[in-house]
Amino acid sequence: MADHHSLMEYAGRQKRLVAGLRPDGVDALLITHLPNVRYLCGFSGTAGVLLVPASGRPAKPIFYTDGRYAQQAANEVHGAKVVITKKAPLNETCEAITRAKIKVLGFETEHLSYSAYRLLSQTLRGKVRLKPMAGSVELLRVNKDQGEIEQIRASVLVAASLFQTALTAIRPGVTESLVAGEMELQARRAGAEKMSFDTIVAAGARSALPHGRASLQPIPGNGFIILDWGVILAGYCSDMTRTVHVGAASATHLRMYQAVREAQWASVEAVRPGATTGEVDRAAREMLKKSGFGTYFTHSTGHGVGLEVHEAPRLAKDQTQRLTPGMVVTIEPGVYIPDEGGVRIEDMVLVTESGREVLTPTTKDLITL
Amino acid sequence: MADHHSLMEYAGRQKRLVAGLRPDGVDALLITHLPNVRYLCGFSGTAGVLLVPASGRPAKPIFYTDGRYAQQAANEVHGAKVVITKKAPLNETCEAITRAKIKVLGFETEHLSYSAYRLLSQTLRGKVRLKPMAGSVELLRVNKDQGEIEQIRASVLVAASLFQTALTAIRPGVTESLVAGEMELQARRAGAEKMSFDTIVAAGARSALPHGRASLQPIPGNGFIILDWGVILAGYCSDMTRTVHVGAASATHLRMYQAVREAQWASVEAVRPGATTGEVDRAAREMLKKSGFGTYFTHSTGHGVGLEVHEAPRLAKDQTQRLTPGMVVTIEPGVYIPDEGGVRIEDMVLVTESGREVLTPTTKDLITL
Repeated sequence: MADHHSLMEYAGRQKRLVAGLRPDGVDALLITHLPNVRYLCGFSGTAGVLLVPASGRPAKPIFYTDGRYAQQAANEVHGAKVVITKKAPLNETCEAITRAKIKVLGFETEHLSYSAYRLLSQTLRGKVRLKPMAGSVELLRVNKDQGEIEQIRASVLVAASLFQTALTAIRPGVTESLVAGEMELQARRAGAEKMSFDTIVAAGARSALPHGRASLQPIPGNGFIILDWGVILAGYCSDMTRTVHVGAASATHLRMYQAVREAQWASVEAVRPGATTGEVDRAAREMLKKSGFGTYFTHSTGHGVGLEVHEAPRLAKDQTQRLTPGMVVTIEPGVYIPDEGGVRIEDMVLVTESGREVLTPTTKDLITL
Repeated sequence: MADHHSLMEYAGRQKRLVAGLRPDGVDALLITHLPNVRYLCGFSGTAGVLLVPASGRPAKPIFYTDGRYAQQAANEVHGAKVVITKKAPLNETCEAITRAKIKVLGFETEHLSYSAYRLLSQTLRGKVRLKPMAGSVELLRVNKDQGEIEQIRASVLVAASLFQTALTAIRPGVTESLVAGEMELQARRAGAEKMSFDTIVAAGARSALPHGRASLQPIPGNGFIILDWGVILAGYCSDMTRTVHVGAASATHLRMYQAVREAQWASVEAVRPGATTGEVDRAAREMLKKSGFGTYFTHSTGHGVGLEVHEAPRLAKDQTQRLTPGMVVTIEPGVYIPDEGGVRIEDMVLVTESGREVLTPTTKDLITL
């Protein structure tokens, strides 16, 4: 994988993290959540922990991983000393923490198992105080820098290019799974590392399931198909949904589609710096209430996207977080009527200084196949 | 997805779990690891917790999930009452625990985050004692029952059928990623839900990486290609590795391949009831030492496979767990020489009453393309 970020970017992120840690009085933060590790030093493998000092001991961040990742760590890690551990990385990290005479160690409460916590706590007993911290790195990640926005744009465009593949693959009798498979092969052709989540292809009555992973069900001769997919490109995720119709759409189906389209537009229009995530959610919810489909919108309106496909902020009922430039969120209201079918439309939207930019370029006209 | 397990099977598993819990003095066990939830009640979704009583309160297991999974839970869950929660499932579970007057609650230390632990501990303070438990369900899962063995056989056969797809796709200049993509599309054609892990296609010098996920590197005109893949079929995983050669293999490459093949065979032969996992690991390790490649075998020999692609037991140096009938393990020694390339051969092997059965039907002759 190409090196998309410079040492300077990683150093800047580490510096911002440390500045945020000081008021908490921690001497170092132990990063165990891999997307956070990647954000701070570039490592993209699946095992490793990063120790970030806040008070000069150790002198610079240390990244611990095992022998399987020696080569990859040497290639990828920026702004941290790499230590290849013989024992489990967490055990060697404990020794380094003791050696550096760290007094207060912050840890990621959402991303450390109780058993790892117990190991830390027993090994460091009497020497180090453990301080539960949540969301320190996520707080930084929520506003994307210019390099990240370019990566996300590229990821969105690859995802969007798979829509045509889906339209070509869909026909009555073909399984949902095969449609997903054709999209996934095309994603690899277009350079994606992998899909950002299990591809959803939910046809006919299954379109009423908000999480209808592509199944072995053949596509029926008439009804909605919800397609919800995304790719990971150079670490950055995309996420989009389109709903198409096989056969002629009934008046009810046309009303459902139109209602979701208008609701989606209303929430997109509500995206601007200073708006709360709850307001953006409410815009779609109220439009669907007006059109009589309010009770069929059973999930939240969206979420942040970046190194993870679901990350902060949450765009849901009564959320009070304010949008700020550089956030990238999905806007994805839906209507799900049991036994009838469902519609969801999802774009990725960048919060700009003056408002918003819809990143997803794909048409939202109802396509009938 | 078809219902492959009967109520009786789930009831039997729950009964064996409860029998194992009694000596620990817990009144109920909170299951938060989804593969364990699936094993005990059949739910295959991605959010939910299961409360299993050990002392008659509540009267039967209760499964908590949110509204997105109402339909799926109704279809899939056996042997447990289903509760669709309005709040986060863990919060409602706490209320039920309090109501049931549970005094000692076991929890899964490896599969509960520190923050979820803290929520439990604060909510239940003064009413319930939390008892850390590790591996209670995993202990049962390690020996597969007849139904599981049939599912695993089917999963292995689907995985094996993808080898021909790979052989057809491989040619110099084609990216590793595209080979993986063709295999994954074929997996869907053959009915798999998904791959059991990110497909590894590591060609040329990249074959020296034990974890060389398929990349955008074109396949070079000469050298090894390690292919390591598996599928999930009806919830059960498969995992296999074959190494092929593009162009004529040098004398060194032939020696490497032969050494790994003999080492793999030695470990397969060591699989029998009563053998320790360490002995099985040692068989491959010693063969590779004899052939002069010992220092290039840098990982463990294998692991269990079932609802998870990596589960107990671990076949590694100095492990003392004894094999018993019904265990399904991988045997996968490898040799990795930096800049030169690597070889790994992996089968899935069932421990039988009298010895072993190699489940993977694919040839281990060196295929040169």
